[in-house]
Amino acid sequence: MSDGAFDRIALIGLGLIGSSIAWAAKRAGLAGHIVGTARSEQTRETSLRLGFVDSVAVTPAEAVEDADLVILCTPVGTYGALAQEIQDTLKPGAIITDVGSVKTAVVRDVGPFVPEGVHFIPAHPVAGTEYSGPESGFAELFDNRWCILTPPPGADRGAVDQLTNFWRRCGSNVDFMTPEHHDLVLAVVSHLPHLIAYNMVGTAADLEEVTQTEVIKYSASGFRDSTRIAASDPTMWRDIFLNNREAVLEILGRFTENISALQRAIRWGEGDALFDAFTRTRAIRKQIIEAGQDTAEPDFGRTARKAPTDKTS
Amino acid sequence: MSDGAFDRIALIGLGLIGSSIAWAAKRAGLAGHIVGTARSEQTRETSLRLGFVDSVAVTPAEAVEDADLVILCTPVGTYGALAQEIQDTLKPGAIITDVGSVKTAVVRDVGPFVPEGVHFIPAHPVAGTEYSGPESGFAELFDNRWCILTPPPGADRGAVDQLTNFWRRCGSNVDFMTPEHHDLVLAVVSHLPHLIAYNMVGTAADLEEVTQTEVIKYSASGFRDSTRIAASDPTMWRDIFLNNREAVLEILGRFTENISALQRAIRWGEGDALFDAFTRTRAIRKQIIEAGQDTAEPDFGRTARKAPTDKTS
Repeated sequence: MSDGAFDRIALIGLGLIGSSIAWAAKRAGLAGHIVGTARSEQTRETSLRLGFVDSVAVTPAEAVEDADLVILCTPVGTYGALAQEIQDTLKPGAIITDVGSVKTAVVRDVGPFVPEGVHFIPAHPVAGTEYSGPESGFAELFDNRWCILTPPPGADRGAVDQLTNFWRRCGSNVDFMTPEHHDLVLAVVSHLPHLIAYNMVGTAADLEEVTQTEVIKYSASGFRDSTRIAASDPTMWRDIFLNNREAVLEILGRFTENISALQRAIRWGEGDALFDAFTRTRAIRKQIIEAGQDTAEPDFGRTARKAPTDKTS
Repeated sequence: MSDGAFDRIALIGLGLIGSSIAWAAKRAGLAGHIVGTARSEQTRETSLRLGFVDSVAVTPAEAVEDADLVILCTPVGTYGALAQEIQDTLKPGAIITDVGSVKTAVVRDVGPFVPEGVHFIPAHPVAGTEYSGPESGFAELFDNRWCILTPPPGADRGAVDQLTNFWRRCGSNVDFMTPEHHDLVLAVVSHLPHLIAYNMVGTAADLEEVTQTEVIKYSASGFRDSTRIAASDPTMWRDIFLNNREAVLEILGRFTENISALQRAIRWGEGDALFDAFTRTRAIRKQIIEAGQDTAEPDFGRTARKAPTDKTS
């Protein structure tokens, strides 16, 4: 019965992603019981009050007892210690998965602690908003987005099918990759854009000749939209960069090489080189719209989706 | 009578900005007659059909005859030649202004051709969308945005007041700066973000290991929003970079210096440095929202404004 439903789901971490998974699972009737755990008592209480968990546990080890599906929903830097902490209470036959934005590091950190008979299938739902915390989650977060699974060679077919169907019924499309390829793709489409956005805000803040008030006042001219993701959670992003070092440095190297070429074209007044560079990017932007991942509508099509479903991760 | 209204307004260039100015001026009853000119016959015909101009002229020299307000609405690279072309038919006492995203170069290129008795007051309405052409304009484009005037020392007070009121009644707030300061501020809030967006798309397109399909598919994770402005008009942006070289190179130098520091922190696993860098940017993002230049709403508050009023310029 590979219907993507589980008797008992344990969520470790109850922030934006954890709470959204709970809401999405409830919407689709995928969970008999959802138990959640978070380090902060306040987060646990808020989650109970909002009602997206059926019960809470104080420790991760306690939370995973009897759970058929365990999902790590904390920043990726915590996964190794968590895996070690829960290894003795994981139910035989359970599936353990995660939502981390990097995958080779997760395999490296979690893999050694997965007991025989437990199925470890790393996953990354590519969805998010720039908001954090248990109040920020909503059932539609994953609708029409992609969830990437990176099952290890020889992974149990039934377990992979179960997790695939779980994510499909949470609203996602599901894709499969190796952890290494995942990390390179995400370095391009997500990690580099976030680093650049953080850096752009930082650079503007340091200028003595231009006041912060001026930056804010005139931000509609480009700065605002290209730096929106710089509001994303700092802990999560620190962990992503520390754990996807090679791919990020590779992409960043290419980025700075290219920016040097544009810099040179500006310095030497090479108008044709600039025009050509600016023209080819237009075509790609158009394809993003055509692929349904964006829209030409003034509100970015967000009203049609009724909720913030982008940014981050 | 400094009410911002003019008997005859001449628009040179009928793209996004020219057509939006016409719509905004009509909305506020600021023009007795609007004459427009554009190089392409098709653009002139479309403009007449859409009705935002009352008449069209084939040449700029012809368009400015008898006009009390002349607005250059073409890419800034064309201003010098245009100013030379219209110098003999400008009406004595007329105001000549522009909408260029750079200001020192405009003063340099246009200034020498302004006849005695004509008031030259450079301006930059900081508003735009990523769309181009006469069909893309709308009256609300400038509402609640800023228009920066850079009147030269000793400029005629009455003329400055007239143009200030014109822009206010088109919906804008008006600010005053020197051309040099304008160019530095815009390099930070607009020109750098556009260059980075173009470069990010270009870098992604060049990768052999990651397909364009993958970039498009997963673009919701950051790439999409930080590259939206890479769809902006290539000619306009080539001219901006060629004409704001010093300020852009200065800001770009700081940007790449800072990115090198982040790169180093990633390479050496300096988590605290990354965390600190990511934390301070959050506060600035929050201020952009508080200043009313952005919103925390899922649709970016765009529905409330009823039209695309951002990006570009």
